[in-house]
Amino acid sequence: MAPKTSIQQVDEFGLINLISRVLKSSQRNSQLVLGIGDDAAVFKTSKKMWNVATVDALVEGIHFDLRYTNFEKLGRKALSSNLSDIAAMGAVPTWALLNLTIPAKITADNITELYRGISAVAKKYQTQVIGGNITRAKNELVICITLLGEVEPAFILKRSSARAGDIIAVTGDLGASQAGLRVLQKRKPSSVFSYITEKHLNPEPRNEWIRRLLDKGVKINGCIDISDGLSSDLSHVCRASNVGAELELAHIPVHPETLRAAQMARDNVLEYVLHGGEEYELLMTLTPRNFKKAKRILGKNITAIGRIAASHTISGLSKNRKIKIESKGYKHF
Amino acid sequence: MAPKTSIQQVDEFGLINLISRVLKSSQRNSQLVLGIGDDAAVFKTSKKMWNVATVDALVEGIHFDLRYTNFEKLGRKALSSNLSDIAAMGAVPTWALLNLTIPAKITADNITELYRGISAVAKKYQTQVIGGNITRAKNELVICITLLGEVEPAFILKRSSARAGDIIAVTGDLGASQAGLRVLQKRKPSSVFSYITEKHLNPEPRNEWIRRLLDKGVKINGCIDISDGLSSDLSHVCRASNVGAELELAHIPVHPETLRAAQMARDNVLEYVLHGGEEYELLMTLTPRNFKKAKRILGKNITAIGRIAASHTISGLSKNRKIKIESKGYKHF
Repeated sequence: MAPKTSIQQVDEFGLINLISRVLKSSQRNSQLVLGIGDDAAVFKTSKKMWNVATVDALVEGIHFDLRYTNFEKLGRKALSSNLSDIAAMGAVPTWALLNLTIPAKITADNITELYRGISAVAKKYQTQVIGGNITRAKNELVICITLLGEVEPAFILKRSSARAGDIIAVTGDLGASQAGLRVLQKRKPSSVFSYITEKHLNPEPRNEWIRRLLDKGVKINGCIDISDGLSSDLSHVCRASNVGAELELAHIPVHPETLRAAQMARDNVLEYVLHGGEEYELLMTLTPRNFKKAKRILGKNITAIGRIAASHTISGLSKNRKIKIESKGYKHF
Repeated sequence: MAPKTSIQQVDEFGLINLISRVLKSSQRNSQLVLGIGDDAAVFKTSKKMWNVATVDALVEGIHFDLRYTNFEKLGRKALSSNLSDIAAMGAVPTWALLNLTIPAKITADNITELYRGISAVAKKYQTQVIGGNITRAKNELVICITLLGEVEPAFILKRSSARAGDIIAVTGDLGASQAGLRVLQKRKPSSVFSYITEKHLNPEPRNEWIRRLLDKGVKINGCIDISDGLSSDLSHVCRASNVGAELELAHIPVHPETLRAAQMARDNVLEYVLHGGEEYELLMTLTPRNFKKAKRILGKNITAIGRIAASHTISGLSKNRKIKIESKGYKHF
């Protein structure tokens, strides 16, 4: 017998490759536009609109700690993280399905609060929870949401369409979720850190912004949402598009609270910015002309942070020194 | 503060009611045909075909025990239980999304086997896994599948369409999954119980049978898949249709191995038959004329087991005595 490979020896990317191979034999439906490997799958149901679908889960002890979140925020975040994947495809969310596995310690009031959070975000983004399933669990609360959406075929955004010369732009600011998590873990008074703790516990997905760009004719080439961290997610875009990237590290937008939290923790803020996960900001690549257009529309909510390069490496310019950027965002195993 | 309600005090049905209330405010999309409360949700994407969607999860320690299943069968069962929900709607499966939460003890080989099982069933039922997500877990393996399907508007089957006077019919035989589970738990030699242990570990969903009936013009009124147990699932149909039911207990089809396993365990076989879950057979209600037609098509694979009544109770006729049947199939909490 061959030696067993522990799950820790295979990262999510490796596992997805392995899985894609096993599943490939059944992949032959002509209505499929995009299968495993992007933020969401895309399939055709009519000529005018295509459908997208994504699934994501929040697992207790891995993605959240009940000591410093409440159930309403947890519900919000669970749906928002899925909305972010739909935004990264350029799509509009439509329907959600919810699977809960619930250990005995959770009360009916907790679940009502959780649903209130989900429901509030669903309403805001005109999405509807149409199906659900509830099962017991012995230990961990797991909130699993499948989100469907629809998109005009011309608007679909892919990881694989970045081109050398494109501007790399991000929405919002980076590092805040990771900084907020550190503050929460150390139980610092949260009032002076309300922006970053809220960013961690209750992130706002960027669906409205991306649709505003698309509706106003901005052509976006590559797109991904930053859930694993800038270095990881940019490397996913580069790998899928067969290109590299050069970041201007000083240009990456960082919130003052993020800086202050890093200073207090004696952490290098670049660690948060480059490798912190759960940002739920969008990273997009677009021509300089389209970036200008996007900037006029989103103002300070979008920032150019570098260029797509023909090389296959990702580097960062910091004080005129070029450094290689390793992809070391959130590892799932 | 009001006293907390423990999750054990609320059954899944109560929780779904509670959730439906919380979510109702966001339910207002005209493309929705059927929301929470049936085997799957139904929504419109085109006039010719409607879409259905369902989500289900297998949780370690609740739905399976790694001591007596293998990963390939686990993968098969995970997809089959979802296929069964799609069958109960009269729909044809199309796309699947898979969320895995994986504790450290699980090996990459285990996951490959799991996917092999999912892939084999997907191929057989012309379904395709188009998306997935993998996260770590501290304790339990959770396999969560969302399955989409499509159905001609005229073919949609609902829980709420049973009518007084309808024949109640079931596919296959009942009680086998529960009997198989008991045998597995007691680790009896499985060769003499291969039918019932296989029925528990690797059930065959009835998608082909239901579509054969619909394609040949059989009109089915109410329909549900038996996942919680006959008594529970029949009561779901009766409640949704505002009717009652009278079962002929002697007519319920039972496999000889089921009988033998019950005898050996000194259990009343009726307990397995009426209240055993995870059957993945279909319960349907249809006029006597349509039942005859169905019988000609499916032969011994479909059996009449009673009648829908105008009353609101569910009773069973056993040796000319009428007994009240309590709904006590599988409770999730």
